[in-house]
Amino acid sequence: MGGDKLEKVSAHKSVEEMHEKVENDDMTNIHSRFEAMEKVRCPYCAKGVRCNICSHGPCRIIPGKTDTGVCGINKDGMVMRNILRINSMGTAAYTYHTNTAAKTLKATAEGNTIFEIKDEEKLANLAERLDLDTSLEKNELALELADLMIEEINRDSEEPSKVVEKFAPDLRKDNWEELGILPGGPLHEMMDVKSSVMTNVDSDYKSMAFKTLRMGLATAYGSLTLLEEVQDILFGTAAPHDTEVDMGTLDPDYVNILPNGHEPFMGAALIQVAKRDEVQEKAKEAGAKGVRIIGSIETGQELLQRFKSDEVFVGLTGNWITEEYVLATGAVDAFVADMNCTVPTAGEFAEKYSSTIIPVTKLVNLPGVEHEINYQPEKAEEQALQIIDKAIENYKNRKDNPTEIPNYSKKIRTGFSPESLLDLLGGSLDPLLENIKNGNIKGIVALVSCTTLKNGPHNENTISVAEELIDRDILVLSAGCGNAGLQVGGLTTLEAKEKAGEGLKEVCEALDIPPVLSFGTCTDTGRLLNLVSAVGDELGVDPTKLPVAVTAPEYMEQKATIAAIAAIAYGLYTHVSPTPPVTGSEKVVKLLTEEVEELTGGKLAVGDDPAEIANGIEKHIETKRKELGL
Amino acid sequence: MGGDKLEKVSAHKSVEEMHEKVENDDMTNIHSRFEAMEKVRCPYCAKGVRCNICSHGPCRIIPGKTDTGVCGINKDGMVMRNILRINSMGTAAYTYHTNTAAKTLKATAEGNTIFEIKDEEKLANLAERLDLDTSLEKNELALELADLMIEEINRDSEEPSKVVEKFAPDLRKDNWEELGILPGGPLHEMMDVKSSVMTNVDSDYKSMAFKTLRMGLATAYGSLTLLEEVQDILFGTAAPHDTEVDMGTLDPDYVNILPNGHEPFMGAALIQVAKRDEVQEKAKEAGAKGVRIIGSIETGQELLQRFKSDEVFVGLTGNWITEEYVLATGAVDAFVADMNCTVPTAGEFAEKYSSTIIPVTKLVNLPGVEHEINYQPEKAEEQALQIIDKAIENYKNRKDNPTEIPNYSKKIRTGFSPESLLDLLGGSLDPLLENIKNGNIKGIVALVSCTTLKNGPHNENTISVAEELIDRDILVLSAGCGNAGLQVGGLTTLEAKEKAGEGLKEVCEALDIPPVLSFGTCTDTGRLLNLVSAVGDELGVDPTKLPVAVTAPEYMEQKATIAAIAAIAYGLYTHVSPTPPVTGSEKVVKLLTEEVEELTGGKLAVGDDPAEIANGIEKHIETKRKELGL
Repeated sequence: MGGDKLEKVSAHKSVEEMHEKVENDDMTNIHSRFEAMEKVRCPYCAKGVRCNICSHGPCRIIPGKTDTGVCGINKDGMVMRNILRINSMGTAAYTYHTNTAAKTLKATAEGNTIFEIKDEEKLANLAERLDLDTSLEKNELALELADLMIEEINRDSEEPSKVVEKFAPDLRKDNWEELGILPGGPLHEMMDVKSSVMTNVDSDYKSMAFKTLRMGLATAYGSLTLLEEVQDILFGTAAPHDTEVDMGTLDPDYVNILPNGHEPFMGAALIQVAKRDEVQEKAKEAGAKGVRIIGSIETGQELLQRFKSDEVFVGLTGNWITEEYVLATGAVDAFVADMNCTVPTAGEFAEKYSSTIIPVTKLVNLPGVEHEINYQPEKAEEQALQIIDKAIENYKNRKDNPTEIPNYSKKIRTGFSPESLLDLLGGSLDPLLENIKNGNIKGIVALVSCTTLKNGPHNENTISVAEELIDRDILVLSAGCGNAGLQVGGLTTLEAKEKAGEGLKEVCEALDIPPVLSFGTCTDTGRLLNLVSAVGDELGVDPTKLPVAVTAPEYMEQKATIAAIAAIAYGLYTHVSPTPPVTGSEKVVKLLTEEVEELTGGKLAVGDDPAEIANGIEKHIETKRKELGL
Repeated sequence: MGGDKLEKVSAHKSVEEMHEKVENDDMTNIHSRFEAMEKVRCPYCAKGVRCNICSHGPCRIIPGKTDTGVCGINKDGMVMRNILRINSMGTAAYTYHTNTAAKTLKATAEGNTIFEIKDEEKLANLAERLDLDTSLEKNELALELADLMIEEINRDSEEPSKVVEKFAPDLRKDNWEELGILPGGPLHEMMDVKSSVMTNVDSDYKSMAFKTLRMGLATAYGSLTLLEEVQDILFGTAAPHDTEVDMGTLDPDYVNILPNGHEPFMGAALIQVAKRDEVQEKAKEAGAKGVRIIGSIETGQELLQRFKSDEVFVGLTGNWITEEYVLATGAVDAFVADMNCTVPTAGEFAEKYSSTIIPVTKLVNLPGVEHEINYQPEKAEEQALQIIDKAIENYKNRKDNPTEIPNYSKKIRTGFSPESLLDLLGGSLDPLLENIKNGNIKGIVALVSCTTLKNGPHNENTISVAEELIDRDILVLSAGCGNAGLQVGGLTTLEAKEKAGEGLKEVCEALDIPPVLSFGTCTDTGRLLNLVSAVGDELGVDPTKLPVAVTAPEYMEQKATIAAIAAIAYGLYTHVSPTPPVTGSEKVVKLLTEEVEELTGGKLAVGDDPAEIANGIEKHIETKRKELGL
């Protein structure tokens, strides 16, 4: 509809086929909209040199004509300010998620939810690390932890973060203190940033750069670190297991419920409730074979990590670009939208393809979609039952309609976590470190990414970058929407070791692991940083000295950018593609891609070509190895 | 520099003259930059139909070609989302200010500042209203109040605001509850909004409209209501008195220190410290006649309200568009920048015209300006002394340079507040209500505005609108940067009654007041709403039924837009000019200018012509009078 037809739309055949169908049905879709927009891009917006936050705007920087905005801000300030405004959304969203996790933990500890404290050991470890009274009974202790989380979220920006104090390596903390980026709580840091980016407040790009680094650390520690740990406490810590991915996980004869978004809460409740006989029976009475829960995008990853596949929970469809195509199968009865990443067109697709979109937080609203449910921990059971009823109702209405499900699915291995990795290694990091020292593993890269069409077909850049890396004996830990790209693309299977270099292949065979370890969602950024901290501690070196890096080969949104900033502030080489809208300022580019390395040890790397991306990372890793004498 | 020469640049001769000088000096200035930008505006930005928050952007809506962004958001969602992103900065900034006030109150109550609890009666009244233990000693009570403020700032969005509960009229609360906009705390509301405006989260313009109304109420109550009251408690409640305004308040023979921004804290400390003999002596030793504090923009208003003019504190220069011109006089020794509204070019002007820019919060940073001081309540004294030393140093370096100070100053009356108004009326609102009933006063308008060049010369629209209103017997309460426009423009003098209609003139004479009552800063929005609530209570009617309105004839920035939204949510007719970037969506325009009236009773009015603006307001007031049977 509108756009020219693309030659290749995705790395996945399922998406290719469904795109064809959607085009034939004359429906709007992400690919056609992208193609249409490609012809009308604004170069000022693309470079970040425009602004219309005040009534003197809109402004744009045209060298020689309008060298500053009306207020007088120069291009460097304007570019950086736009970036801060984008990043602050990511901080907000991660913190919202953490706040919801804290409230869920609290309500659970008070016995008011259908959830329970599942990982007591993790609770005890975390409590000890945070100086809580570990002699308390588990629910009492969980309450203390929930209160600490909320206190951390709301902490004044002048008061140093307790989570940073307890979790960050000493050398890092010294570095951040020296730079003035040792943060307080995430919400107050965000308030400071948001106040700074008003008209006529902060107009110095360097000062703003420090503020975003600081907000990045507040997000990684104040929000993300406890978030994932608490989700483990509630739903269990990930352990390796096999599951199925891609659209073939949909069976039209079932009532198919797809929790979509970034939070596991409603999805976990749905899995739990859907297993009840009376629920399955109800679906059967409606003519279905039963009720199934299939994960979608990041909520899917959260669930995939912690829940083993069975009759009811059967796997994951794909990442966010697949949403319209998954709905177009005609086999989705409820698309349960939590938090973020539900496309605005979902309502249109639901109407055309007989699905029901069910937003479950106040954040999500879509044109043409009713909104009745807002997740509350205490009501999760009742709300899950309500969702299932709606899904069964949808099934009744659509069961005689045709469906079209691409016949692709893939068995993959998932469930890697710092704990499960340690288990695999026999309880000590030593075997891993040994393999790094002997060069079997050259280094480790966290691939934490979204997916975008800006770099070509859906997921193709992500897969290519991962392939380039493993071929160079670099182990990949994958998280975020990009993770689904690698899962559906086949790189998280045991067989994928064949694509790895000789050294890495040997390790994969010895440990029975894929060369790409499926590590969860973008929310796991905090946990990945803490894993790097643990390795640094083990080796007794500043973690910025390690042969590790981060890549986001297909970043899309605002959580990705603040996560990248967090990684740079932490001190890591952080590749991001496509290049964010910063090219309008040489100074900002230089600061982020070069000068910051002198400050935190980390830096931003850009570039869109998979081989070049991998070359840059490999070079960085080789340098670090050399410096460590490896 | 660059732009064509404007025929008229300001309603004020002082600014006209200094603009001429700055142009002759070949310096950049707000007027030349505005003129240059007028030629290259982007129509998509101007209408709000563009976005580049994600890597699929930049997007723009071109009907028939690109009817939605790549994600699928339509023009209505895109326009509203951009507005929410702008408004959230205002909420952040107001809340930052409130947080600073709470910390200052706390430190003062603990005896750790040079400030004191000045208005004990207000403290006691406020404490009673908030159910605090009024039997406590004043410092103990102030501590309780500070804690309550911080609790309110950090309150979860699911937990209803305590300040709304205690301060909002019952009928309003019922209305807000029904609409789902009864807010929690401002920071968490902002977090919800910021999470909602990410890519693929909220794409429904109506839902986002409700969210911004809710954030507006959270800001007005959770931040602003207690903020101004606490500043009164610390620095005294405004009472009518005379002072001087315009650039003629500068005397080159003095060490001139200009607190600029929106917060009174550092300015109050400077006034207090500058009065010490040894400080004045130090300035004299440097060859000056002494040290003077002259208020600039909103910080100036905060000080003007609460501190009587004397040898040391001598008045106010003007509002934000005057900043470059004031610096160009060559007579500013320290330009003390707190919080917001210090133009990015201040450093350039300071260098050219021998001034020193001293940022005093971490928020403010400018190219070429050193940043050493961050206001801390406990250190205010020491920091004020440090600033004075820097100013004296500046004086020594510039005293032999030429200065150029436009010879204009005006005696005005200021210091109006709900309390001082009540005092004037003899302790009861009845005389005011009587004059409203008998039609001497047709209605009351709060003019809360910034200043902008978008509507023509600096301050001209603001002055014209106020003149049109008072001519129609409408009493004007003025606040914000617009207030300085009216002060310098002569409408807050007793003589200005001659410009009022017969009825209003009679009231001015009877009470010895100007027809425009100088009410402080944009931060006073909360207090103005509470005044309307008090009148509604007195008359036993829903305050939306009163013959009152709000106008911002020259809005500029993000605090203005959230304050306007707060007024609409509260239920008031709210005029804003220039029209914010919403015209790309007919639906958003209709919602804000028409449909919302069915919801809250308030609405947005737009339009840039002074007579038409006043006609619209008068018509609204006449309707309300009729409905009340007046």
